[in-house]
Amino acid sequence: MYVIIVYDIEQERVAKVCQYLRRFLYWAQNSVFEGELSEAQLVKVKSGLSKLIDPQRDSVYIYQLPGKKLVKKEILGQEKIVTRTILE
Amino acid sequence: MYVIIVYDIEQERVAKVCQYLRRFLYWAQNSVFEGELSEAQLVKVKSGLSKLIDPQRDSVYIYQLPGKKLVKKEILGQEKIVTRTILE
Repeated sequence: MYVIIVYDIEQERVAKVCQYLRRFLYWAQNSVFEGELSEAQLVKVKSGLSKLIDPQRDSVYIYQLPGKKLVKKEILGQEKIVTRTILE
Repeated sequence: MYVIIVYDIEQERVAKVCQYLRRFLYWAQNSVFEGELSEAQLVKVKSGLSKLIDPQRDSVYIYQLPGKKLVKKEILGQEKIVTRTILE
């Protein structure tokens, strides 16, 4: 599946979340990650994120789509540099 | 179609963009809007956004999906309050 994760996380926790998500997904834009994940990887990402965030103060939305082919992405203005990380 | 818009826009322009997108979509989270749009509305939103942003400095990603049914959304932590606006 194709996943888009957007988050609104307080300053003291955001670096760790960003670092964690880089292991699985592309950094697309501030507070936005995207990429292909298997079901098992998604379970892992959700559990890892749950340990890193404060559920009373932070917000993470995980949009799951059947596959990248179904997602059309258009960019207005700048495309932020996408860094490729090694998937586990 | 179902649209998720994420943006990274400089401070002086972000309020206008937010105000503009509220006319068409739900505010989902800081810098994130989502909702159903027709092709015509999408064309209108893109042209409106292009007039509001500085393409050299701002970044808007428009993810287009065939329909809401194909999007599974999970939330970790807080769901930000979704305000409903009247579509044109």
